[in-house]
Amino acid sequence: MTPPAWKWFVEYTHPTQAHMHGVESFIYSGKTPYQVVEIIDTQVYGKCLVLDGKIQSAEHDEYIYHETLVQPAMVLHPAPRNILIVGGGEGAMLREVLRHPVVEKVLMVDIDKDVVELCQKYLTSWHQGSFDNPKVKVLYMDARQYLQETDETFDLIFMDLTEPLENGPAYLLFTRQFYRVVADRLSAGGIVALQAGSFNPRLIYCHAAICNTLKTAFPVVRSYAAYIPSYDGSWGFALASKLHDPLRSSGPEIDRRLQERGIDGLRFYDGETHRGIFSLPRDVRQAKRIEQRIIEDDQPLITY
Amino acid sequence: MTPPAWKWFVEYTHPTQAHMHGVESFIYSGKTPYQVVEIIDTQVYGKCLVLDGKIQSAEHDEYIYHETLVQPAMVLHPAPRNILIVGGGEGAMLREVLRHPVVEKVLMVDIDKDVVELCQKYLTSWHQGSFDNPKVKVLYMDARQYLQETDETFDLIFMDLTEPLENGPAYLLFTRQFYRVVADRLSAGGIVALQAGSFNPRLIYCHAAICNTLKTAFPVVRSYAAYIPSYDGSWGFALASKLHDPLRSSGPEIDRRLQERGIDGLRFYDGETHRGIFSLPRDVRQAKRIEQRIIEDDQPLITY
Amino acid sequence: MTPPAWKWFVEYTHPTQAHMHGVESFIYSGKTPYQVVEIIDTQVYGKCLVLDGKIQSAEHDEYIYHETLVQPAMVLHPAPRNILIVGGGEGAMLREVLRHPVVEKVLMVDIDKDVVELCQKYLTSWHQGSFDNPKVKVLYMDARQYLQETDETFDLIFMDLTEPLENGPAYLLFTRQFYRVVADRLSAGGIVALQAGSFNPRLIYCHAAICNTLKTAFPVVRSYAAYIPSYDGSWGFALASKLHDPLRSSGPEIDRRLQERGIDGLRFYDGETHRGIFSLPRDVRQAKRIEQRIIEDDQPLITY
Amino acid sequence: MTPPAWKWFVEYTHPTQAHMHGVESFIYSGKTPYQVVEIIDTQVYGKCLVLDGKIQSAEHDEYIYHETLVQPAMVLHPAPRNILIVGGGEGAMLREVLRHPVVEKVLMVDIDKDVVELCQKYLTSWHQGSFDNPKVKVLYMDARQYLQETDETFDLIFMDLTEPLENGPAYLLFTRQFYRVVADRLSAGGIVALQAGSFNPRLIYCHAAICNTLKTAFPVVRSYAAYIPSYDGSWGFALASKLHDPLRSSGPEIDRRLQERGIDGLRFYDGETHRGIFSLPRDVRQAKRIEQRIIEDDQPLITY
Repeated sequence: MTPPAWKWFVEYTHPTQAHMHGVESFIYSGKTPYQVVEIIDTQVYGKCLVLDGKIQSAEHDEYIYHETLVQPAMVLHPAPRNILIVGGGEGAMLREVLRHPVVEKVLMVDIDKDVVELCQKYLTSWHQGSFDNPKVKVLYMDARQYLQETDETFDLIFMDLTEPLENGPAYLLFTRQFYRVVADRLSAGGIVALQAGSFNPRLIYCHAAICNTLKTAFPVVRSYAAYIPSYDGSWGFALASKLHDPLRSSGPEIDRRLQERGIDGLRFYDGETHRGIFSLPRDVRQAKRIEQRIIEDDQPLITY
Repeated sequence: MTPPAWKWFVEYTHPTQAHMHGVESFIYSGKTPYQVVEIIDTQVYGKCLVLDGKIQSAEHDEYIYHETLVQPAMVLHPAPRNILIVGGGEGAMLREVLRHPVVEKVLMVDIDKDVVELCQKYLTSWHQGSFDNPKVKVLYMDARQYLQETDETFDLIFMDLTEPLENGPAYLLFTRQFYRVVADRLSAGGIVALQAGSFNPRLIYCHAAICNTLKTAFPVVRSYAAYIPSYDGSWGFALASKLHDPLRSSGPEIDRRLQERGIDGLRFYDGETHRGIFSLPRDVRQAKRIEQRIIEDDQPLITY
Repeated sequence: MTPPAWKWFVEYTHPTQAHMHGVESFIYSGKTPYQVVEIIDTQVYGKCLVLDGKIQSAEHDEYIYHETLVQPAMVLHPAPRNILIVGGGEGAMLREVLRHPVVEKVLMVDIDKDVVELCQKYLTSWHQGSFDNPKVKVLYMDARQYLQETDETFDLIFMDLTEPLENGPAYLLFTRQFYRVVADRLSAGGIVALQAGSFNPRLIYCHAAICNTLKTAFPVVRSYAAYIPSYDGSWGFALASKLHDPLRSSGPEIDRRLQERGIDGLRFYDGETHRGIFSLPRDVRQAKRIEQRIIEDDQPLITY
Repeated sequence: MTPPAWKWFVEYTHPTQAHMHGVESFIYSGKTPYQVVEIIDTQVYGKCLVLDGKIQSAEHDEYIYHETLVQPAMVLHPAPRNILIVGGGEGAMLREVLRHPVVEKVLMVDIDKDVVELCQKYLTSWHQGSFDNPKVKVLYMDARQYLQETDETFDLIFMDLTEPLENGPAYLLFTRQFYRVVADRLSAGGIVALQAGSFNPRLIYCHAAICNTLKTAFPVVRSYAAYIPSYDGSWGFALASKLHDPLRSSGPEIDRRLQERGIDGLRFYDGETHRGIFSLPRDVRQAKRIEQRIIEDDQPLITY
């Protein structure tokens, strides 16, 4: 009998819970000033980007994550011209945004230049050359500082951040104070969309706290979720806006707008998917009602 | 530093993919004539029933699985009086069915008396005494044989089976020939609902083949799915019927019918949940269109 | 392909080092007032007693551990009549001591009555009925208290203790103060033998500290070691005495004494084995020379 | 709480037994025409060379393995001038041989040039520049073919081979037919030393079979073993010769010869170590007596 794989990446989500991924090869391992980076190749999910021990996205299902984070807001906004992406190092956020011909400018602000360069080199199926698109500009700096100092306003702001790990680079980008800054840099019909924590019932309080915090800055805040196989779980997202509400768009309207914009390459998102991902199960709605926490700069949310 | 847990249950879903559950205690381990049984206690998911190395249901989230399997069909049927449950050893299927006062008789047919008795003893929060309900009758025999020999017809048939493992007890309950027998034992407005394989894209062909096979016996076949945390994944279900179609029920209609029947103890299922679980993502719909396989007795489906 | 074992006992020896043992069944799991107890059954090593997450002894190789701990001292002493065993819950220490017809009395003092009773029930191939031998008496109490209060003296004292884990029951039985008490209860030609920590070079400082501490109470202190497969390592022992020195016994002398006493059931120990286990490799001797620590009650040794 | 390591190398020694090594970084991963190669860095054992999923040697304890394989034969031979090393890719065999000024020529024959070059590049603390020593010559070819075709004779032949894995590069270098060839290429007082399988009682039959097979070609065959921490076990070696017998050398004689040759850098081997490693425990001697197998080309030994 052949023994099973001998190289494993083990992603702990709790001291007593973990997922084991057999690894074909460890393509890259290193440390940046901000985080520990691995690029691994797995039989089942293909290449994976791992930051601080957490899978960020996997070759075979990153389309689910990135379409879910980007497309609902893109479609909901009638004319998204000026886009900001916070984080998004893999370049797949760019790829998704650039599907929409109406887009004129995309600014990506990522604190970790090393990670972006590694993704450019190794994760070509993610970015598909998007970094070379003349509409795209990349800044390597702290997004909070950028937003505090700029005069620019954006139609859409996407936040594709790592989880708020202790000493990680992102935990101050999930607070009431930061969302206030974000709201100020959004145009009147602007929308913000972000990854917003696991939908595992054990961790749903994190998602709920993020939504509560968004509500301090935005009149419309909606949760949604998609099952991401390489995360072994259902992952939460939030869409917050000053005006537009995704619950008011029917499936056929979504499909019509995608068609009007000439977008036919999506694998995950469309009108029926939209209806599904914005319909939350009762237990999640209940858990969200119970959690009252608002995240503050001096009491940040930290996940395992 | 305290070391992490030292007792683990590792559920392999592939030679290179596994989930590790730290175990507080192994409450029961044994073999029945049909399968290997463990009842384990975990910090995160509470007690779990494990058959042939696969978690069947977990204390803290079994409500998701069992409500999802039972309630859509129960609600869709205008007057479900006579119910058959195939499998369902934990007794939670009974619990869910018995929420509906309109039910007059529930027959449960499970091949493995030992497992049912272990569940009665150890999994009290699952069955909550349902085995003692005078409407309930339990038969210990092969469900296929039972259905071939009986004259009885049922309004609803639920199939809560283990996955079709090689040499497992259930693999001949997923075939075209068996679904023909099931259809013959359903009343004119009858509905069948079953667990129908993982929604992991890698395994979706199993779910698709089950749906294809159901279509050989039923005019209406619908897929749906729910994220089950203790499975670390989105799990597929199928609803097949001669008449009623869950896609034609709106959320408010679902909520109204639940209210009419006086059911208010559900934690997962309601109208909005219904809309979500029956809205399949585009990639799943696409994968289902591609898979053509129909499962035959002499070419059964076998999963890892 | 059949998946590998799904129940595992993982023994961590370091946050980044562990041994995985596939488990056939978890025979017993529980907590006593002193420690967490598991009795597991493994394919490769048979039944194993696990205390606080550490394998204490395994059915298929406990003979190595127990013969090594008991026989060198038994053989070295010309007339071992009155024996004390501290710990030794499995009863295999008794079995080994009772091989020598010259023995008149064996007192076993173990703090944990529950563990002893579990061993009596489940580990019959270890004790082989030794608890019923009329020469044997068992006391359930703290051995240090017993030795402080008794007037009895012993020819041999064996200490078969768990490792000095934080909050474990044994860490105060490895100190200078305790060894002083032990020395006082030994007869003039008396010998003490004990398990004395891993021989893994990374942990050899523990063994060295135990030996240093013994030297504060005994003129002769000798290290020895045996490879215990179920420990995945070479395990250290120490023999301390007021008079007799195991390095002065040649192999043929050992074999002759065993023969004189009519002992022919040993599987591991004899003259050649004696020569091997008392010959330490150069790196271990060197490491022992460097480590100066003496273990004090108020600065106890604690292992991972 | 910080989660434990997330990258692991798991070395399976049986379907239900494995050792987990947390990995700091995977320095190199690749395939040669002969085997899968990894160079990993671990917190506890430093860098490790892994071939086909088995640790070959580890930075922090390779001195134990290489001194044990090389030094007993080197010291036993009164004038080892012309040396052959079969395998030995890390270069640590060269390092050990070259400690003896009496050596005039060392030929190393390794089939896998890629592995040797990787070791030269990454494992500098192993070879310590030995490849550049003018006494050294390296041939990249099948050692069996080389020995069949050459006229050269050697004073010492070392075989530092991977285990005989199915389809691995070494399994035909453990057979009666090959040992016949080896014996023919040894000078009259020549000695051969080889790694010869695990000393785990479960696997001792492999070691025994290797010894039996050596006895078909050599009058003197001796087993010995050392505990190698990074292997988590006691590892077997064999020394076979036409004349010299290591059991006839006392510890002081060993120490004297080392001193005569001016060798003082050894960390593991000396006279006392010699006595220990050549003293086999009784159970091993017994197991060796029982196993009768002789390994033939057409019935090779294959390990897991």
